[in-house]
Amino acid sequence: MNHRTVFFVSDQTGVTSETLGHSLLTQFDGLKFRGVTVPFINTPDKAKECVRRINLTAEVEGSKPIVFATMVQDDLREIIEESQGLVLDFFGAFIGPMERELGRVSSHATGKAHGVADQRSYTRRIDAMNYALEHDDGSTTRDYSKADIILVGVSRSGKTPTCLYMALRYGVYAANYPLTEEEFEQGKLPPALARYQDRLFGLTITSRRLQQIRQERRPESRYASARQVSFELRSAEALFARYGIPYFDTTESSVEEIASTVLDRTGLLNRLQEGGG
Amino acid sequence: MNHRTVFFVSDQTGVTSETLGHSLLTQFDGLKFRGVTVPFINTPDKAKECVRRINLTAEVEGSKPIVFATMVQDDLREIIEESQGLVLDFFGAFIGPMERELGRVSSHATGKAHGVADQRSYTRRIDAMNYALEHDDGSTTRDYSKADIILVGVSRSGKTPTCLYMALRYGVYAANYPLTEEEFEQGKLPPALARYQDRLFGLTITSRRLQQIRQERRPESRYASARQVSFELRSAEALFARYGIPYFDTTESSVEEIASTVLDRTGLLNRLQEGGG
Repeated sequence: MNHRTVFFVSDQTGVTSETLGHSLLTQFDGLKFRGVTVPFINTPDKAKECVRRINLTAEVEGSKPIVFATMVQDDLREIIEESQGLVLDFFGAFIGPMERELGRVSSHATGKAHGVADQRSYTRRIDAMNYALEHDDGSTTRDYSKADIILVGVSRSGKTPTCLYMALRYGVYAANYPLTEEEFEQGKLPPALARYQDRLFGLTITSRRLQQIRQERRPESRYASARQVSFELRSAEALFARYGIPYFDTTESSVEEIASTVLDRTGLLNRLQEGGG
Repeated sequence: MNHRTVFFVSDQTGVTSETLGHSLLTQFDGLKFRGVTVPFINTPDKAKECVRRINLTAEVEGSKPIVFATMVQDDLREIIEESQGLVLDFFGAFIGPMERELGRVSSHATGKAHGVADQRSYTRRIDAMNYALEHDDGSTTRDYSKADIILVGVSRSGKTPTCLYMALRYGVYAANYPLTEEEFEQGKLPPALARYQDRLFGLTITSRRLQQIRQERRPESRYASARQVSFELRSAEALFARYGIPYFDTTESSVEEIASTVLDRTGLLNRLQEGGG
């Protein structure tokens, strides 16, 4: 089957236009798309060059490319709209109703969406990332008093990517602590963790999926064996129950979904919103 | 000045609706917004509860909340649209034109946008994150043959967050190597790096900003002194010139912008798109 080419055109990084486009494209199962991101289209010359690329694709493939555009400047947007693609222009569609409701004309200024305009929140994200790196995989239990959240779970249940994502995206101070033989034998958490019981959140995963992940990393090891994996997961869930730690099964979820779920269930999302804005 | 409340309503994590909403809101300088994310609105009951929240806000604040919605299911979307907010609905606006152009009815299935549907690319992102963690801050120069890119620059020029972001978002294998006295005194790169000269990309930053960042971490240290900072930056840029390494000044840019710039200038963005889709 032929694919349809999709352009993500932006006067900036293209992140917004990709996010919008991908979430719409997932609604069309069974069709094949080829994505082309064209960032930093910030002059009329670059916009015209982009239109030539779109038109060439239309001619070669014999079908209209889909063009997701996030152009702030009217003159650039108008150039893109003259292309032979189906142009879905996100600013064009929404900025008008917003201007009417807010009683203001928008600034039409490029480059604010992902800039460092909000320096305070940006610094917090970088600091949070450093915190997550320093507190990854139980490497230190110092400074847990600064943690917004401490993820616990067995090795390869999704703790590290989730912590880094929560830090980089939301500025959340997220530590994580791996549950191992030591905790399972004793049937309890170390004092450094137990003290912050209200900040703990557990991650679990099905034994089938965990075995698969571990097998890829250390084939044929005890670590990846069905028996070891089942034992660890059962023991971890017993600890969650004992300490009343809320937990979530990450098997079917992406990092973005795990992070949102954790923030939602712990109420951190609301607290972040009250503090920030 | 009063703020205007903005709701990001989603049947999923809310990431798409936040990304789109924020990029529109940045076009209205000088107005104050309070953001409230309402994720996982996936039943009529939850949607009605959300509408009550929007309506209550409208009454208390005496102005229409702005509601950015990304609801796939028509019935849920219709409930939200009956609220007293200004509902800007991304799916509603674009899915129609796409269905007509593609000659298909969309699946209206929730939860695909950030799911693990594309398992291959998801595994690649997690593997890339592990690679970035293992190859952070020059901790090992082994396996540079697997790197898509190796960022070089002085301490605190933005290498680590950029590598992690490129890995988590794009599945790029990104290593980073800090330039220190050793390289500056010898005026050359270690053989492990020089061998992969075509994968190197430099980050630099103004001495004023670098001094500020280092001062926050180690106040009054030699590390944060004007003299040391200027020396390091001059020496690093001399190395970039000597080896013909392209480089970028990160002072005014967010992690997202640095990552996009690096991927764009190195041509990695195009290569990723040809490989993936």
